[in-house]
Amino acid sequence: MDFDANLPQHLERHLAAFLTEAGADIRAGEPAFGSGVDALTRFVLGGGKRLRPTFAWWAWRGAGGDPGGPDTEGVLRAVASLELVQACALIHDDLIDSSDSRRGRPTVHVSHAREHRAHGWLGAPETFGMAAAVLLGDLALAWADDMFAGAPLPPATLAAAHPAWRAMRTEVLAGQYLDVRTQAVGDTTPEAALRVCRLKTAAYTVQRPLHLGAALAGADEARIAALHEFGSDLGVAFQLRDDLLGVFGDPSVTGKPAGDDLREGKRTLLVALGLQMAEDPEQRKLIADAIGADLAQDEVDTVRRTLTEVGAVDAVEVQITALTSTALTALERAHLAEPAAARLAGLAETATQRVF
Amino acid sequence: MDFDANLPQHLERHLAAFLTEAGADIRAGEPAFGSGVDALTRFVLGGGKRLRPTFAWWAWRGAGGDPGGPDTEGVLRAVASLELVQACALIHDDLIDSSDSRRGRPTVHVSHAREHRAHGWLGAPETFGMAAAVLLGDLALAWADDMFAGAPLPPATLAAAHPAWRAMRTEVLAGQYLDVRTQAVGDTTPEAALRVCRLKTAAYTVQRPLHLGAALAGADEARIAALHEFGSDLGVAFQLRDDLLGVFGDPSVTGKPAGDDLREGKRTLLVALGLQMAEDPEQRKLIADAIGADLAQDEVDTVRRTLTEVGAVDAVEVQITALTSTALTALERAHLAEPAAARLAGLAETATQRVF
Repeated sequence: MDFDANLPQHLERHLAAFLTEAGADIRAGEPAFGSGVDALTRFVLGGGKRLRPTFAWWAWRGAGGDPGGPDTEGVLRAVASLELVQACALIHDDLIDSSDSRRGRPTVHVSHAREHRAHGWLGAPETFGMAAAVLLGDLALAWADDMFAGAPLPPATLAAAHPAWRAMRTEVLAGQYLDVRTQAVGDTTPEAALRVCRLKTAAYTVQRPLHLGAALAGADEARIAALHEFGSDLGVAFQLRDDLLGVFGDPSVTGKPAGDDLREGKRTLLVALGLQMAEDPEQRKLIADAIGADLAQDEVDTVRRTLTEVGAVDAVEVQITALTSTALTALERAHLAEPAAARLAGLAETATQRVF
Repeated sequence: MDFDANLPQHLERHLAAFLTEAGADIRAGEPAFGSGVDALTRFVLGGGKRLRPTFAWWAWRGAGGDPGGPDTEGVLRAVASLELVQACALIHDDLIDSSDSRRGRPTVHVSHAREHRAHGWLGAPETFGMAAAVLLGDLALAWADDMFAGAPLPPATLAAAHPAWRAMRTEVLAGQYLDVRTQAVGDTTPEAALRVCRLKTAAYTVQRPLHLGAALAGADEARIAALHEFGSDLGVAFQLRDDLLGVFGDPSVTGKPAGDDLREGKRTLLVALGLQMAEDPEQRKLIADAIGADLAQDEVDTVRRTLTEVGAVDAVEVQITALTSTALTALERAHLAEPAAARLAGLAETATQRVF
């Protein structure tokens, strides 16, 4: 039972137990609901880096949480519930972005549309797929709350983490709403991309999970503030690395086709910087036209070369290095206990380091 | 401050306060998020019968809740949060059903698609409308939990209501998922329609709100069980009345075009009974063809006449009368304090009585 060493297994144990228990009553009476619960269960247990609960766990450990103490199982359950929020975010995001695959498998709306088509059911397969994705995402979000609120922890412990829980869910939805709006109005400035990134990635993926874990350990304001700074800079650095991977990443590592972010029309900070830094109008046009275009491999190569030539790739690398460095300084100010400080520093390195 | 007499105003006071407070931090930094919060606020405060919090309130009062006591504002906030769950359910349901109007106004996905089109933004207006509806429904669901969990009540009081809160959200989503699946597979039996109705209307609209309110007052198992029976029968009766209104209702009362349930292809118990009771194959075909068809007024009239002729309308009326009667008997067994017992009986009459 080494929680630190086998964290993903412990998180998945709690997720599997909750997913079995949460739908049991209705499944007993309504077997057809089972196919929905099964689809959600496969999605949640079918992969993912468990990044958010991992940040939360190490913040809890670093702020004094003792795996030998009475709160451990409650904390594992509370932080594992972040994966259900993430399931909702991914299922709904994939629908909004019309993404066909996720983790090398068909997305929820696509797999349901295929099931509909294979059975020759009534109505449009795409409408059925959309409906299933909306409802299973909703179920994940409702169950996230049930899993968090039902964690076996003293009421005061859970209440201390509530501000982080509240803020996290509002921030990710606000970030996604801003993202959709920013893309619609065609705001291609780096500032707009950074604002979306601060809510959608930094706050949701790093800051609030750290805040939540630290609050579960009763951390004081000063420590939470230091973790916020660490999370803010690390979160942006992490998104910038993801931006680079989305354009330059190896499909066998990312699980997505090469240059997929371009095809999906993502307004990343990388692309925004490329547009801003391109002095040659032709280079600017080449980048602008690539966003949301159905690019062939050689066209992806051309865009990659252009983003590199205009200096956007270097600029992003410089920012990643600078943000990772300020993040690590903030982490020191949080004065976390070991091994948490070293593990969080390691996570910061891993999540931001060059992999190609 | 007569809570019993002015319940809707008190519920709306809490909803308005919460909606202002919940988005305040992010709106301050991100004014663009404001348009989303404003759209959700208009939707929530823009109408509705407040049926679910009203059932919850009277169950609380009937189980001994004292409006002069310390819990009143906390209970109002907790039960008002049901309107945010309902906002999510309606916004997502309207998207799934491609409904254009709700309460005489454009639905959320339609109004956002129009905004997109009016500004000539990038991408497809319908995709933007879909994205906004998905995300604002999610926000309503996340905020429902925040509003409920943040109600100023003793932890034990709120914890007692948690089983009802959990069951209600899972049941409505299971009911919607079953509804979508039942329609897709073309199951037109009354049994299938009844199963959807038991989850989507009876459990979600009546049973669980009553359970939640009674639990907030510390009701015992026997009283909650009696309220469950009352809610189950009343909920089905209520849906049956709604089925009749959806086909026979006056547009000036329902706010929807005449025969709208037929056009939307709803597999109601009324239609299922019509199909089952029609002995003449032509009458059966006429009903079957009407589901999901773009009917003219005279065609709606023909379907109405046919549903009446095959006996489905009478059968539904008989069931409504019988269910309302057994519901009222169960209500007596709950031994609620006055004026709650009389008010709930009155709600049962109003919600199920013939209005045309």
